[in-house]
Amino acid sequence: MTNNHIVDLFLNPKSVAVIGASKNIVKGGNRIVHNLTLNNYKGKIYPVNPTAKGEIYGLEFKKSVLDIEDEVDLAIFYVGNRLIPGLLEECIQKGIKGALIEASGFEEVGKKGLELRDKIVEITDTFSKIRIVGPNCMGLTKIDENSNSEDKGGFFSGFGVFEKYKRGNIAVVSQSGMLNGGYLMHIMQKYPELGFRYSCSIGNKMDLSEIEFLEYFLDDPTVNVIAIYLESFKDPRKFIELCRKAKKIPKKTIILVKGGLTTQGQKATLSHTGALAENSQLLEAIIKQSGVIQANSFDELFQFARTFSMIYETDKKLPTKGGVSTIVGSGGAGTLIADLTMKYGLRLPTLGDDSYKALVEVFPEWMPPNRFSLVDIWPAMEKAMMERKDRDLVIKAAYDAVLSEPEIEGLFNMMFCSRRFRSMWNIPNMVKNARMTPKPIFFYLIGEAKEVRYLSEKLGGENIPCFSELEDMIKNFGILVQESKNKAGN
Amino acid sequence: MTNNHIVDLFLNPKSVAVIGASKNIVKGGNRIVHNLTLNNYKGKIYPVNPTAKGEIYGLEFKKSVLDIEDEVDLAIFYVGNRLIPGLLEECIQKGIKGALIEASGFEEVGKKGLELRDKIVEITDTFSKIRIVGPNCMGLTKIDENSNSEDKGGFFSGFGVFEKYKRGNIAVVSQSGMLNGGYLMHIMQKYPELGFRYSCSIGNKMDLSEIEFLEYFLDDPTVNVIAIYLESFKDPRKFIELCRKAKKIPKKTIILVKGGLTTQGQKATLSHTGALAENSQLLEAIIKQSGVIQANSFDELFQFARTFSMIYETDKKLPTKGGVSTIVGSGGAGTLIADLTMKYGLRLPTLGDDSYKALVEVFPEWMPPNRFSLVDIWPAMEKAMMERKDRDLVIKAAYDAVLSEPEIEGLFNMMFCSRRFRSMWNIPNMVKNARMTPKPIFFYLIGEAKEVRYLSEKLGGENIPCFSELEDMIKNFGILVQESKNKAGN
Repeated sequence: MTNNHIVDLFLNPKSVAVIGASKNIVKGGNRIVHNLTLNNYKGKIYPVNPTAKGEIYGLEFKKSVLDIEDEVDLAIFYVGNRLIPGLLEECIQKGIKGALIEASGFEEVGKKGLELRDKIVEITDTFSKIRIVGPNCMGLTKIDENSNSEDKGGFFSGFGVFEKYKRGNIAVVSQSGMLNGGYLMHIMQKYPELGFRYSCSIGNKMDLSEIEFLEYFLDDPTVNVIAIYLESFKDPRKFIELCRKAKKIPKKTIILVKGGLTTQGQKATLSHTGALAENSQLLEAIIKQSGVIQANSFDELFQFARTFSMIYETDKKLPTKGGVSTIVGSGGAGTLIADLTMKYGLRLPTLGDDSYKALVEVFPEWMPPNRFSLVDIWPAMEKAMMERKDRDLVIKAAYDAVLSEPEIEGLFNMMFCSRRFRSMWNIPNMVKNARMTPKPIFFYLIGEAKEVRYLSEKLGGENIPCFSELEDMIKNFGILVQESKNKAGN
Repeated sequence: MTNNHIVDLFLNPKSVAVIGASKNIVKGGNRIVHNLTLNNYKGKIYPVNPTAKGEIYGLEFKKSVLDIEDEVDLAIFYVGNRLIPGLLEECIQKGIKGALIEASGFEEVGKKGLELRDKIVEITDTFSKIRIVGPNCMGLTKIDENSNSEDKGGFFSGFGVFEKYKRGNIAVVSQSGMLNGGYLMHIMQKYPELGFRYSCSIGNKMDLSEIEFLEYFLDDPTVNVIAIYLESFKDPRKFIELCRKAKKIPKKTIILVKGGLTTQGQKATLSHTGALAENSQLLEAIIKQSGVIQANSFDELFQFARTFSMIYETDKKLPTKGGVSTIVGSGGAGTLIADLTMKYGLRLPTLGDDSYKALVEVFPEWMPPNRFSLVDIWPAMEKAMMERKDRDLVIKAAYDAVLSEPEIEGLFNMMFCSRRFRSMWNIPNMVKNARMTPKPIFFYLIGEAKEVRYLSEKLGGENIPCFSELEDMIKNFGILVQESKNKAGN
């Protein structure tokens, strides 16, 4: 263990027992061992199953944790819920300090589940003899190195097998297992540039909850962004306290999706994680007091997480007042951007004389630029073409002009992507332009689907946020302003 | 002309003169002729250019429209703005009834442009001698047959060349040329299943405006959905009247994006189409009174258009009260759907005894279904697997159960897409399930990007709306309810 926090035991165990390991490849107990070995877990793995014989992924089965000679830090459970109390007693006897229970069938199934829970509380002496993550969870994942590197891997203890991933600065804490499994894979494919450091499924959080994980990630310098999905608050006071602490830490942002904010949603959470109905007004007060960035859905959660991740990776400055400039190739899109900026509390400042003059230089006489910072670049590009000048110089001039304004804190750059235009792109120059300033630069990419993906991956790989929907881009700039205000207020 | 409406002249001309046709393939005047010939325009085409010699795309150049012996219905202009008054006089002399002016440099460039405008008003005797679409537009497009069919084509008069397209039931009317050009191509690639009937760029609308096009499309039975982008209202009273008329026509829906709703947006429209600042409150009153479906951005405009297009193509019934059921494979996603339904005025009704019993049948005892209509299907699927029963029967049973409830007017079906699961999909069954009911069925698809695209194209091709973002799906169901209320109220 690298520090003394209990979460460290769960994310950096030196040895694990997989209780319920199985030779049958469709069973979760098989996939957990597969996931651990495939992803180079460096500690010792003991597959445990009283009825299995021989080996699994080169590891010999044990009948019980009590048959393991060496010390075991963590027991991972994938067995029927009714077996768990007895097996937990064996773990306690063995001196195992943590249990990661991926099995379901507890609070979320009603009376019988609650009885099981009570039994576990008794056996563990209210979790003093052994600490528990879960039950009804999808495991914990720590990524040390990218899957395409020689040293790929980390600690992958879920039953959803991960084959491709990238290490990054995001930690996920979730009460929806899907978010740590299938949905996370979906996001990794949707945003291939996005890297994760941890993905923690906390399930019904019988013992450990969001609180311990938050504490741990606030102290972990490899984590900049904490993306959380909760169905209930285990300790609202402590949650608020930790969120407020986060605001004082540079480059640390918490984004929350709270499921069950409405009466309909609460009916759903009850059967999902057994979370009891909470007062909607109270919930809103908790969220407001915590000052976290709130997202509406998983999609929004990860889009926001991506934006903060990239902003922090590239040492950008969070905009404080919401002044932004826009470079577009379409008057209609420019108009809608101008309208939508107001919806998200942003504005297009008026250009000062110097920056306006610099813009006028590259524009044709018949179509001068705007005084306010919406730049329809097309006439300037046409002029450059007619004068056989380098179009990149026009873009550079526009960037220099608007970014020289102190009130302009960032830039939206719209681009139309087409196979026909690819030869015109100078991606290194685009990256250079975006990098030369501490102000965030966002791209709005439309056009041929394949070309949009191509450019999006190229720019995304350089931590430049790209969006394919206009409103998303503007909303994401808006949350940067919100976060800088949060941080300033604390 | 198939009817007597002026728009008919512009969308179904028997012969056109392209004034400013050029041999230089980078010029708009070349691309217009290319677009017309490539897409099998069935009328006669006369390229006009006083300095060009020989042929273009097999058509002989004329020095002036006055040199054309036959009758000409429509003149398409792609020449410098200053030349237009003189050339218009020639057109009037020739007896040409319509001018489609794609050149820019009029109201949107200030004083000089306004002078040009006044001259045109004088020459045309306030558009009584010749009618005008534009200036500053991207042409008009009518699609008769899909680009991959033998009879591909229609009337393609813009300078953005279209090579791939599908005929459908959507008409676009726009004051942003990009929307009819690059953005439309973007949308056609984003939603390959989507078909269009017309795409009309109306530019500065010096003469003809959204009013004439709306009138025409309301009467055209091949059009179900009219997607409009406006920067100004030419005649608010008439606009409201036409939108209200639309509500009385079955299978006819108008969706509007209004640019320049805010002070910032209005600054942008001025330099784009010369639209003058309008009172924001007045604008909102117009939109409210018209009762159109309002969209925030081009992305939303076409997503809404797609939904209505598919609903009308498959003879679905618009939901009237907002009761919806949900089949998910994740409790977390189910919870967020439940929360978001409330945001969009929808609800998950409680199941009656019969439908609940039917659901209980396919669920395992250890995890019974909900009484309210959120179905986490996973336990039922697991039961079917254990009992070696056909999983499709489980889905069918769930559909039958929830859709038998009169209060449930539609269904959200979440699916996780993975290469590993592809063999389990029975797409014909999925289509059959979605088709057997008049209630709209929406899919929320996540998972591996390639598989999502694959299934989305398969289902989309059958006019079943698929979404990759949760909130989009719910918002789109919400607008169906809004439209049915609109239609009922009139």
